[in-house]
Amino acid sequence: MTLKTSRRSDIPMFRALDILRDANERAAKGEDIKRLEAGLPCFGVPQAVLDYAKEVIDRDPRQTYTEALGIALVRDRIALYYRDHYGVDFHYSRVAITAGSSGGLSMAFLSAFDVGDKVGICTPTYPPYRNMINSLNLQVVEIQTTAETNYQPTVNLIEQCGEKLDGLVICSPSNPSGTMLSESELEKICNWCEANNVRLISDEAYHNITYEEPAQTAAKFNKDAIVLNTFSKYFAMTGWRLGWMVVPEELTDRIKRLSENYFVSPPTISQHLAYKVFDHMDVLDTYVAYYKKNLDIIKSELPKAGFDKLSNAKGAFYVYADVGHMTNDCEEFCHRIISEAGVAMTPGLDFDMIRGHTSVRICYADDTDDIIEACRRLQEWQK
Amino acid sequence: MTLKTSRRSDIPMFRALDILRDANERAAKGEDIKRLEAGLPCFGVPQAVLDYAKEVIDRDPRQTYTEALGIALVRDRIALYYRDHYGVDFHYSRVAITAGSSGGLSMAFLSAFDVGDKVGICTPTYPPYRNMINSLNLQVVEIQTTAETNYQPTVNLIEQCGEKLDGLVICSPSNPSGTMLSESELEKICNWCEANNVRLISDEAYHNITYEEPAQTAAKFNKDAIVLNTFSKYFAMTGWRLGWMVVPEELTDRIKRLSENYFVSPPTISQHLAYKVFDHMDVLDTYVAYYKKNLDIIKSELPKAGFDKLSNAKGAFYVYADVGHMTNDCEEFCHRIISEAGVAMTPGLDFDMIRGHTSVRICYADDTDDIIEACRRLQEWQK
Repeated sequence: MTLKTSRRSDIPMFRALDILRDANERAAKGEDIKRLEAGLPCFGVPQAVLDYAKEVIDRDPRQTYTEALGIALVRDRIALYYRDHYGVDFHYSRVAITAGSSGGLSMAFLSAFDVGDKVGICTPTYPPYRNMINSLNLQVVEIQTTAETNYQPTVNLIEQCGEKLDGLVICSPSNPSGTMLSESELEKICNWCEANNVRLISDEAYHNITYEEPAQTAAKFNKDAIVLNTFSKYFAMTGWRLGWMVVPEELTDRIKRLSENYFVSPPTISQHLAYKVFDHMDVLDTYVAYYKKNLDIIKSELPKAGFDKLSNAKGAFYVYADVGHMTNDCEEFCHRIISEAGVAMTPGLDFDMIRGHTSVRICYADDTDDIIEACRRLQEWQK
Repeated sequence: MTLKTSRRSDIPMFRALDILRDANERAAKGEDIKRLEAGLPCFGVPQAVLDYAKEVIDRDPRQTYTEALGIALVRDRIALYYRDHYGVDFHYSRVAITAGSSGGLSMAFLSAFDVGDKVGICTPTYPPYRNMINSLNLQVVEIQTTAETNYQPTVNLIEQCGEKLDGLVICSPSNPSGTMLSESELEKICNWCEANNVRLISDEAYHNITYEEPAQTAAKFNKDAIVLNTFSKYFAMTGWRLGWMVVPEELTDRIKRLSENYFVSPPTISQHLAYKVFDHMDVLDTYVAYYKKNLDIIKSELPKAGFDKLSNAKGAFYVYADVGHMTNDCEEFCHRIISEAGVAMTPGLDFDMIRGHTSVRICYADDTDDIIEACRRLQEWQK
């Protein structure tokens, strides 16, 4: 008799990984593949921060656990950042440092929701929202956004979902579309959640990678919101696996107890890097300028290759392209583009299981020359 | 109206933290407190491994994500360790590198069990087993071990629990008692689980910190077992937050998908340290010899202070003391000992919510001089 495997862990595979494998295999054979399928910065953390990490290792070779919610000094540095950057003032006791924003996301769901609770996600969406919600036995309620709503929710769309929500996850700038909620729309959604007793989870992972106007934090408008952020995107600390949450007063103790049990503490050395990285935002801002240049190229060159229905991206490092006029099977389409044009992108089905078969996500956080060459190849291929 | 907080996150507070705070406050006021309440090595990772970490940072300043289950080379190094150390041979695809063994534990529970499934834990026990099981809406079944069963389960005890178990968590050497299952008893439990369709989760976090005979892995006797281990104890890499699992074939894909969603990947730099640390086990073995010397002191000196009912510790760096002849309220007892003797230890209620009020856990992974002084103080206090 075979032992059971849980139903809750029956998570759909990321189609992106299939494309990744295809691209890697071709690259290994010597094919030159331009990679627009990734989801991470092409830069690392500034050198001065790495030098500081080495100093910290020399100074404290033991590198033990920290408190479960992180080093007080680093939490306080994050709180200071909210005061300076967003004009939102709170005590650092509301900041929880987490094992990536992924670690924060599971703590958020566990602290706020019980089995059967209904949590809204706005498709196309970052897939782990759905997968974590399902595996923790919550119910996913899908709010379908469209190009017409800028791939972001509106109060109207949320109300139309027809379910009494317990929670709602938003993400602006969005993965996969790079679109943003305006500050006034964010405020409306925050107020609607408050009025309707819905716990808002605002994933602000791509804040600061914005090209027109800055993103505002949900913490400004909704005192009950759980705000998630990460050091992996703007701060370019991917492999260091660190994120943070801004948590409402009444959840801090729950999040602390959960974190003690699920994580003990976030990685110590990464917390030291995080403390230091705030001093080098001038360097990080040059990364953003670089992404912006790439986005301009994408916006001007991709339509000439037939990718003319692009999301109105104003942040993050993605555009979401409606390719319904070219294919009805985005997976086959992506494999074909790798094989015929040598360009890798991510099938939309990862982000939207119902409607994503006619979409792709394109990441442009890569070398500008590669972005230019990828566009050239796609134009050539289109002919 | 206040937003709800989940029932599933209503986790009991660690009483150890109360003691920690008390001890810290007294230390801050200048009191000299001897700390037997911690749960981590007094050593760090060998210097050569830290030097290697700095090299890795220089060589690859970008430090991006790795595969969700970790760097293949490191997984393979761990598989090699099982072959060399335990004589158990398997492909590295069965090794999952995790964000501490805590990260492995949640993946283990999520992959194997659904809401309502019954999972046995053996009290006194490491508290996160119970807390994770509850917060994932599984049912805890308590198997009460005693000094007579060496604070370890027996097949007999497990059968007496009166429940049809879906899973069973064991831990040898044990936190909090330091006691071990003999290889033959481990084999019996492994076989019993296989015969009774029970998924065994074997937490082997304290393997290699053993003083009489080595611990054997459950992977040797039960092909369906999920084996958890950590780089935080024997390998002294606490703050680097890395662990691993040995996973049965049929769960590897589930664990991979869960890990992608819940963690993206374990910390990259820590994986490099882990790869290197296997080359320096000679240094790590000197740490174990040091703990052994401390245990000998504890075993000879503590009984003279009235702590004469000590667990038969043969591994880890803990002893569990039955102090029922001295108190019926271990929390009050621990606070009193800090205040009157200047020695901190952990109340047993953390490990055993039903019977722990007459026990304490003593950690001896500290400076030998401090251990000697702590024993002297307790002897003095006892008079």
